[in-house]
Amino acid sequence: MPENQQILLDSRPSGEASVSNFRRVSSATPALQDGQVLVRHHYLSLDPYMRGRMNDAKSYAPPQALGQVMGGGTAGEVIESKNSQFSVGDQVVGMGGWQQYSVVDANQPGVLRKVDSAQIPLSAYLGTVGMPGVTAWYGLTKICEPRAGEAVVVSAASGAVGSAVGQLAKARGCRAVGLAGGPDKCRYVVEELGLDACIDYKAHPDARSLYNALKESTPAGVDCYFENVGGRILDAVLSRMNAFGRIAVCGMIAGYDGQPVPLAQPQLILTNRLKMQGFIVSEHMEDWPAALTELGTLVATGKLKFRESVAQGLESAPQAFIGLLKGKNFGKQLVKMI
Amino acid sequence: MPENQQILLDSRPSGEASVSNFRRVSSATPALQDGQVLVRHHYLSLDPYMRGRMNDAKSYAPPQALGQVMGGGTAGEVIESKNSQFSVGDQVVGMGGWQQYSVVDANQPGVLRKVDSAQIPLSAYLGTVGMPGVTAWYGLTKICEPRAGEAVVVSAASGAVGSAVGQLAKARGCRAVGLAGGPDKCRYVVEELGLDACIDYKAHPDARSLYNALKESTPAGVDCYFENVGGRILDAVLSRMNAFGRIAVCGMIAGYDGQPVPLAQPQLILTNRLKMQGFIVSEHMEDWPAALTELGTLVATGKLKFRESVAQGLESAPQAFIGLLKGKNFGKQLVKMI
Repeated sequence: MPENQQILLDSRPSGEASVSNFRRVSSATPALQDGQVLVRHHYLSLDPYMRGRMNDAKSYAPPQALGQVMGGGTAGEVIESKNSQFSVGDQVVGMGGWQQYSVVDANQPGVLRKVDSAQIPLSAYLGTVGMPGVTAWYGLTKICEPRAGEAVVVSAASGAVGSAVGQLAKARGCRAVGLAGGPDKCRYVVEELGLDACIDYKAHPDARSLYNALKESTPAGVDCYFENVGGRILDAVLSRMNAFGRIAVCGMIAGYDGQPVPLAQPQLILTNRLKMQGFIVSEHMEDWPAALTELGTLVATGKLKFRESVAQGLESAPQAFIGLLKGKNFGKQLVKMI
Repeated sequence: MPENQQILLDSRPSGEASVSNFRRVSSATPALQDGQVLVRHHYLSLDPYMRGRMNDAKSYAPPQALGQVMGGGTAGEVIESKNSQFSVGDQVVGMGGWQQYSVVDANQPGVLRKVDSAQIPLSAYLGTVGMPGVTAWYGLTKICEPRAGEAVVVSAASGAVGSAVGQLAKARGCRAVGLAGGPDKCRYVVEELGLDACIDYKAHPDARSLYNALKESTPAGVDCYFENVGGRILDAVLSRMNAFGRIAVCGMIAGYDGQPVPLAQPQLILTNRLKMQGFIVSEHMEDWPAALTELGTLVATGKLKFRESVAQGLESAPQAFIGLLKGKNFGKQLVKMI
């Protein structure tokens, strides 16, 4: 059996997460039991939600156990099978975790999904045609429910989720405005993804300046906001919301590393009759087929673009993950292992 | 024509509103034109939303014009009519404002509504069977959507809106818990209105103590919250919300007089997948008939109780209104003028 490099959660962060919270080990993959398959991971997905699981606090996901392999989405190939549904060579997506190989009880429904990389690259099944893409689709279509002509704002607009939100909003006839960190990401959001405008929040360190930039890009106000960030960006967008606006709360990465960041003006929810709703895409599995059909078609036909930051080798995962939390990635953050 | 005492908005408050913001004047009521009726007000309704209209800021309602009669709901009697739809002696509810009489163009749909005080006292049409009651009904049934067995919390639980929320929640098979200021109000909420528990927020000046009291009263968490207050009470209840909880934001009286009060932990909206939605009942007129039918039936049959604080004479309105903003009322605040 091949030797399996693995990364475990070694300690919980106090404050900022760091590479020292992780530990790398190696062990032989166990022999397969009936019904199991052995998957060699080509890609590991790194996602902001993993930061929440590093804490021991009550959250939507159970905490990651200490001393265990970090959980995470993986795309790879079946290299050995004792399951009649899977053959050697099948390309599959699952939750293999931060390791090179995983042994999967493939009879459990949903744990391993065969995918076709003829028209869609394998890595995209961890991004735009996977969990992040469905997250964008669900929050936008089920919570924001934008109508053509409305203004949709999305934070972390060049990221795995945000890039899909902005393009899906454009496809629905909306004005779409992104927020991203730095001129390169903003240029990409407008020139490549086709959004109407993008605000570099790093160029607006104070609240008034950020508000003014947003006002300039959203002259008719904001009808829908897809929130990935929280903190002062949420404060600014909230001030631009139109009556009956909808806010899908997908992430609040600004507060993941430390104390909660207060919301400055909650009374705007009342005065503007806003709906603000949090969601987690894994609780809406019934919507995945419709979402994946639309996303897959758009990607295969080149109408939905995405970008990836690819770190090389499993050993690079902790550093790449810390970078993701600081916005150092550009598009979907992956680790390539083969 | 009778002499008409009126109260005008004389100046806008900076910080707390005070009686000096109002001015009393007197003028003869004008002669009626065709289609008009003259209404003598028996009761004036005082409501927290009026505080927002005293400011010149963008809000859901246009600001109250300076030098004009303060707007407000009134219940009274037609004493002169040049409109075939209304006869002298008809009991009517409208938006007559802070004055003893009003001349109403009664042909405009919705401006004047005939009511029957045989089974329901006239004053109740300004409270439980009026705008505050419909506010309770709408926020509870359309935004909170409580299911039997769920826990519903309501702030300002002895007030015009809150008292209806709690009793409607009980009627739907929920556990209902109120928050009110002082032991008398809390006793009333439990013993008279029949809620399961009531927390005297004044007895819990610090956040930890308030949270602990709430935890004791809501051992299984909170599924629905009807918000009338905001500030630290919202912070405490938010910390007790269960996954998929719903918060109807009806009022945030804690911040009406000054600076916005921040929300301490907005990330709970995400981690608990909450829906938080603001609303204004006057934008949902299509729901009023159903609401008034249920509320009227419950009041007429004694199943929906309410309490009134009645100030005597129009001249007492400013002081009574300032008292309302500080929670000095006990139940629906009215001014009796006859």
